[in-house]
Amino acid sequence: MLKKYSLVYLFFLGFTLTGFSQEQLKSPNGRLNMEFNLDAKGIAYYSLTFENQRLLAPSKLGFKLKEQDDLLEGFKIKNVSSNSSDERWSQVWGERKEIRDHFNELKIELVEDKENARQLNIFFRLYDDGFAFRYEIPEQEYLKDFIIMSEESEFALTDNHKTWWIWADYNTYEKLYQETSLKEATWAATPVTMKSKEGIYLSFHEANLTDYAGMTFKQKKGSLTYKSELVPWANGDKVRTSAPMKTPWRTVQVSEDAKGLTQSDLILNLNEPNKLEDTSWIQPMKYIGIWWGMHIGTQTWHEGDRHGATTENALKYIDFAKAHQIEGVVFEGWNDGWANWGGKDAFDQITPAADFDFEKVAKYAHENGVEMMGHHETGGDIPSYEKFMDDAFKLCQDNHVKAVKTGYAGGIYPRGEHHHGQFMVRHYRKVVETAAKYQIMLNVHEPIKDTGIRRTYPNMMTREGVRGMEWNGWSDGNPPSHTCILPFTRQLSGPLDYTPGIFDPTYETAGERVKWNALDQGTARVQTTVAKQLALAVVLYSPFQMSSDVIENYVGDPAFKFLEDFNADCDESITLNGEIGEFITVARRSDTAWFVGSITNEDKRELKISLDFLEEGKKYKAGIYADAKDADWKTNPTAIHISSKVVEKGDTLIMNLAKGGGQAISLIPIE
Amino acid sequence: MLKKYSLVYLFFLGFTLTGFSQEQLKSPNGRLNMEFNLDAKGIAYYSLTFENQRLLAPSKLGFKLKEQDDLLEGFKIKNVSSNSSDERWSQVWGERKEIRDHFNELKIELVEDKENARQLNIFFRLYDDGFAFRYEIPEQEYLKDFIIMSEESEFALTDNHKTWWIWADYNTYEKLYQETSLKEATWAATPVTMKSKEGIYLSFHEANLTDYAGMTFKQKKGSLTYKSELVPWANGDKVRTSAPMKTPWRTVQVSEDAKGLTQSDLILNLNEPNKLEDTSWIQPMKYIGIWWGMHIGTQTWHEGDRHGATTENALKYIDFAKAHQIEGVVFEGWNDGWANWGGKDAFDQITPAADFDFEKVAKYAHENGVEMMGHHETGGDIPSYEKFMDDAFKLCQDNHVKAVKTGYAGGIYPRGEHHHGQFMVRHYRKVVETAAKYQIMLNVHEPIKDTGIRRTYPNMMTREGVRGMEWNGWSDGNPPSHTCILPFTRQLSGPLDYTPGIFDPTYETAGERVKWNALDQGTARVQTTVAKQLALAVVLYSPFQMSSDVIENYVGDPAFKFLEDFNADCDESITLNGEIGEFITVARRSDTAWFVGSITNEDKRELKISLDFLEEGKKYKAGIYADAKDADWKTNPTAIHISSKVVEKGDTLIMNLAKGGGQAISLIPIE
Repeated sequence: MLKKYSLVYLFFLGFTLTGFSQEQLKSPNGRLNMEFNLDAKGIAYYSLTFENQRLLAPSKLGFKLKEQDDLLEGFKIKNVSSNSSDERWSQVWGERKEIRDHFNELKIELVEDKENARQLNIFFRLYDDGFAFRYEIPEQEYLKDFIIMSEESEFALTDNHKTWWIWADYNTYEKLYQETSLKEATWAATPVTMKSKEGIYLSFHEANLTDYAGMTFKQKKGSLTYKSELVPWANGDKVRTSAPMKTPWRTVQVSEDAKGLTQSDLILNLNEPNKLEDTSWIQPMKYIGIWWGMHIGTQTWHEGDRHGATTENALKYIDFAKAHQIEGVVFEGWNDGWANWGGKDAFDQITPAADFDFEKVAKYAHENGVEMMGHHETGGDIPSYEKFMDDAFKLCQDNHVKAVKTGYAGGIYPRGEHHHGQFMVRHYRKVVETAAKYQIMLNVHEPIKDTGIRRTYPNMMTREGVRGMEWNGWSDGNPPSHTCILPFTRQLSGPLDYTPGIFDPTYETAGERVKWNALDQGTARVQTTVAKQLALAVVLYSPFQMSSDVIENYVGDPAFKFLEDFNADCDESITLNGEIGEFITVARRSDTAWFVGSITNEDKRELKISLDFLEEGKKYKAGIYADAKDADWKTNPTAIHISSKVVEKGDTLIMNLAKGGGQAISLIPIE
Repeated sequence: MLKKYSLVYLFFLGFTLTGFSQEQLKSPNGRLNMEFNLDAKGIAYYSLTFENQRLLAPSKLGFKLKEQDDLLEGFKIKNVSSNSSDERWSQVWGERKEIRDHFNELKIELVEDKENARQLNIFFRLYDDGFAFRYEIPEQEYLKDFIIMSEESEFALTDNHKTWWIWADYNTYEKLYQETSLKEATWAATPVTMKSKEGIYLSFHEANLTDYAGMTFKQKKGSLTYKSELVPWANGDKVRTSAPMKTPWRTVQVSEDAKGLTQSDLILNLNEPNKLEDTSWIQPMKYIGIWWGMHIGTQTWHEGDRHGATTENALKYIDFAKAHQIEGVVFEGWNDGWANWGGKDAFDQITPAADFDFEKVAKYAHENGVEMMGHHETGGDIPSYEKFMDDAFKLCQDNHVKAVKTGYAGGIYPRGEHHHGQFMVRHYRKVVETAAKYQIMLNVHEPIKDTGIRRTYPNMMTREGVRGMEWNGWSDGNPPSHTCILPFTRQLSGPLDYTPGIFDPTYETAGERVKWNALDQGTARVQTTVAKQLALAVVLYSPFQMSSDVIENYVGDPAFKFLEDFNADCDESITLNGEIGEFITVARRSDTAWFVGSITNEDKRELKISLDFLEEGKKYKAGIYADAKDADWKTNPTAIHISSKVVEKGDTLIMNLAKGGGQAISLIPIE
């Protein structure tokens, strides 16, 4: 689906082969500029400027290798080439179906200025919305197999920016974002997002993480400079590889306003085109499931009196889904092994629980036109999962199960490996490829971070990798600002299965609850209004969008109509306004309908939006799901005011969001 | 399903066989009393008293016959017997599933005091909620075949009550109710409802109209007395019959408040038990259909550019029904013949329109779990319909069509017969019996009035016989008070297919409209708010409850959630408050859920209701669909305010109804 409409062309910049070298590249609109320098010691540096503001001072490039000389200095330029590309491509699903890939690229080919010289190429790309670079180790005589012990890529920030970040961790991204000065953000996971005094927004991440270690963003002590710190193997190796190879792209998204960050397709553009020939089986969907009961402690994953995923409960969920325009269902705890969760060989992903008739449930779902999403909890036991994986996917395929939610809750077996190291990056990719073989779409929990491989494997639908709804079930919860930060941080990497949709924020009607983990102080609650829960379905993009509450809380609730009408298959997305940690309003188009979600942090606020995005000459029925006047996440979270009106392009809507509140609007064209 | 729990017993009252005779009967609670008298001329009279108030002064009984002596005077009492009964019985569907049938009965056997004496028996029944009598002509020697030329039953009211009534008509009940003094109500159709100065509410009607003529209620000139005026055959005969026979019951429902009238099961109790052995195929449902477009002139019944019932449109309606918890669909204009509507032999009820693939549509509906309601328009051509009827019902049965809407729009063939005469009473019953043979449920338009035969033939689901929604499509419409009168008049006879649910009261979005009849001045609109449209689904009881707007007006409208959640299968009904023509609030239970509908006339009002009817100890999610503060049927009919809260038994809700407004509430138990 590649539609070229400008020729790719090459041009050459002047350069010298010895001594100090400097190459420059501009973004297509000329506003972003980079410079490549090779200093007198043959060390490579790049720097980045937006208009006249220096975003990154000269920042070092290179590697330290195991039992071989570092690839860091003594380079000379062998060749420099540039090209420019402007293409449009289509994706099967995504925030927008049509994407423009418009960049200028600079390829620097370095070679050591010594005997038995090794080669290192660096690609730089400038888009109007950001910057990226990657390394290439080409096939060569004096560098074959090698182990990277350190990627020395630097990101030399130029001021003590305001920074939104989570602590780096080798195993999890499920953390609350902090808003601090850059100097306090000493070791962060990516995406990490910053705002300069001048009002420039920057976000650092990586794209196309393939057979490599995940990058963390570690501050060099006492400086404004970060270095790529890779997650290690058990023995301390970072990346085990051989030439030829390419690293992931290191990316910087740049925008003059916060909402601009969210409109960037940089990460997807830096991934390879779709490798799946037949994508007819890939389809976004809304889903519900047996899940929240376990997190609030009214049900268990494991068999017993409180077992959630029984055949009987599953059939009820299928009936509800069918009746309420929800395409899919997931049943966590459907299988055997949960009593041994955390132990070695606890799960086989094939054997159902004694009170769950897998074939019957799958058949009932299929006959009723409901997609059953399988669930493969691995507990982190990779050897075990890789043993059963093919059979487990086959079992799904044989039973019309077209999607699987995977889980890696627990320390990785083999012990010492980390969720974010190369070992697991390889595993996660193997699962994606195996799933594709059986025409299975994936929803990965406890995943490796998204770096855009959904472009290449569009069956890689969504993932967790975020402190999601479940934390509201048993911890001190996610404060109102949390979801106002995510669109500008975590979500810049890709879809997130946050699983919004809790209609009973205080669990008033939940029945007898049991604490199931040590974080549960019995005081947990959801820190939003119900209107905000609806809005999150729009704001927090996921092609599998869950309505996560127990269905009993949806029955008869007028607010559920929004989730019935909402379409998880998106054609176009526009962020209408937003400030990080404060508020954001997103409009998403599905075919001819639009859905708007607006959320705020702990402050109530009035937002005005213009319906300029609607199609000219069409009238739309607006279903407006607003915080009631007296709504407040703390004192009155369920107070919702639903209304409707006929609107058209150019109309203005004034939205009043409560403390911790939000608003969701469906805009359906009137035929 | 008859559950006796007190023995039927007989007892005898003292009486004399000659001269002036007087018999008395009391209702079970003793508050209603009747007297039977035979005067010196042997003329029979009855009178009725509630507590110490005389409701009916002595009122004559008897018949005038064709070419035979009248059965009016010269009677003596042959025998008097009484009995008392207290039974409970269940119905397949209805306003309540369990009904108490508790009455005292008096049987007066009269015989002429002459040679070749003829016999006439009269049964009187007193319930706590009303009074009824019927005649029996027993098998006898001197009265075999006979023709009733006049039923002389009188109803001698005692004061110039306030009266809600429609003009008597031999062919239609589609009229606006008037509120006048009794003296102005000179000739009314039944039910006709009155309120005395003392605050006693009375409603007159008939029960079990079988092989007889429909009764109208005609005032004797210059008096307060009405007489049963039967609808004639073409030649002036009223009833062609033979002994033994029984007439329908003439009924008076009595209550100290308006809402009490609506709780009466008198009419059903006076009908015979269910005759259908297998009722498993009988099921209430909500339905939508291709219908409103014809009434507002955007579509046509007949084929052509604007033909509504095309295969394509039908499939869309089935898809919508399936997705929105609507069980059924009807497609008016599906068949050939509409271009000749009104002519003889226009329709055959079998041949589809060229652009409507009946078998494909029926199959698609069935495969998608949607009930297709067939449509048999007869145009009033009875010989033609009776010719095709068996084949037409068979066609339905063969294609999984379990319900049929019939229509009699037009003058009756044979010309001279009337919709409400014995000829058509026989036909309508024949259709019910034939439909039952093919396991078809009926929704009869332009029907004979309901007299409760749904008890005997529970496939006789609902009927029109009311000035329904369609009049808002092309006439001066139904004023806001209309639907506030119906529950106390028309609806006392039984379910009505009023077809509420118009979401676009001004047809703003309807597209190009064409006038299709002479009543259409192009100024038509619906004279309610949208919230009132929802409430009407509860207030106006129908086991087939239509949501009548074009589906385009439902898509994306949050208010439609109420109709999705609403259940047409009712187990229990309670009228919470009401005054005739002003307001009414009804609560109906479906399984464990309750639905409340409250409507007002042209006045806005605040109503307070207590949720005492909810089950003790259960919490309920209340979905509240209220008029917005600025709603007004004239100026702002679509302004709706939807909210939800958790409620329980004993809670009080304050409802603010706009001018011409209403409120609908769903109350779903939280498990």
